[in-house]
Amino acid sequence: MSVMWTVKVVGLGVVAFSLSVELLWRLLRRLKPPATLNEVLFFPSEVACMEHIFSPASPNSCCCPLPHGVETSFTHLLRFILSASSSLDLCLFSFSNMDLCRAVLYLYRRKITVRVLVDKEYSVITGSQVGALRKAGICVRNVGRYVHMHHKFALVDGRRLITGSLNWTLAAVQCNSENVLVTEEPRLVQPFVREFCRLWADNDPSQNVPFSDQNVAHN
Amino acid sequence: MSVMWTVKVVGLGVVAFSLSVELLWRLLRRLKPPATLNEVLFFPSEVACMEHIFSPASPNSCCCPLPHGVETSFTHLLRFILSASSSLDLCLFSFSNMDLCRAVLYLYRRKITVRVLVDKEYSVITGSQVGALRKAGICVRNVGRYVHMHHKFALVDGRRLITGSLNWTLAAVQCNSENVLVTEEPRLVQPFVREFCRLWADNDPSQNVPFSDQNVAHN
Repeated sequence: MSVMWTVKVVGLGVVAFSLSVELLWRLLRRLKPPATLNEVLFFPSEVACMEHIFSPASPNSCCCPLPHGVETSFTHLLRFILSASSSLDLCLFSFSNMDLCRAVLYLYRRKITVRVLVDKEYSVITGSQVGALRKAGICVRNVGRYVHMHHKFALVDGRRLITGSLNWTLAAVQCNSENVLVTEEPRLVQPFVREFCRLWADNDPSQNVPFSDQNVAHN
Repeated sequence: MSVMWTVKVVGLGVVAFSLSVELLWRLLRRLKPPATLNEVLFFPSEVACMEHIFSPASPNSCCCPLPHGVETSFTHLLRFILSASSSLDLCLFSFSNMDLCRAVLYLYRRKITVRVLVDKEYSVITGSQVGALRKAGICVRNVGRYVHMHHKFALVDGRRLITGSLNWTLAAVQCNSENVLVTEEPRLVQPFVREFCRLWADNDPSQNVPFSDQNVAHN
């Protein structure tokens, strides 16, 4: 009888152990957060028509001679930008790419909050799309405090970072060897959010004396 | 007796359950990988003497007029590069910063495998350090296939990625608003490892016909 009870006790112990392990394992799997977005795009991108990105309902509406419906690094980049549902913050050295400008204007018309920081000198070069953004009503601030404001990053909804070596120009997209990282890793995204806020506040024309005037005042 | 045994069985079951949960929890905590490195550095960096980075044993050996022993974004960047223990792969648009060059030469003298890819056009501009690297014996390959090889990334030991908007020049470090991401996230690092290997193989002068000659051959 004693042996039987011992066997039962050990058996029950094993069952309890197995059940608890299984339970904890399932619980941990359920608690595990979904994989964070981390992607890299390389350029140059294949030259193709982007109409299917902007008019997905009528992808054949364009009759330009470029290949249609092709997925490239650039279409991926455009899709990441167009995924904004509440805000888009841009901090760009140069901005002359017309498809990227079209994407920004598209979002702005759909009531997405768009804020743009640009390098003061490069915002007025030939082909710059900064004038088109301002004309549409988008708030654009010049950064003139540095030799170059050389960033090229975008923050989508304050939680998705798009950054890399790629300037927002046609040549960079089509002709250069470039990279773009897309990440939602908070330890990478949050410093960029803070940097954007800092630059945005520092370059508020209604609050700040222009840097050139500050220099005069200090000298 | 039967009641006593039931109490004992239930008690043992509870003890076994608690022990197994505790055991599994400790095991999982031990198995949990350490937090992946993800850091962002912003520039311009404070101008300071870098001697304490290269000569930590005698930090006061330099008598230049710059501030000494100061930790800046640039010292962090140098430390990340100098942390290489087996290899350093560089893929750089422009490389004229003498402290960064010193760091690369320092590693090369300590038998770290160094490979460098540079933009063909920018490798010969005034102040370029590419000649100094070649003179020391480091294998440098020109990339001439694109309008610009515009990358600015480093791979430390094939598992740590350093990339961003920052060109490896003095002006970028001291005068521009720039960013550098440092990450060991495999989904960001591995694409750059593959891109480096692709560019390295594509630009092997002993294996490949120069691109200009390829063009002639195809026309």
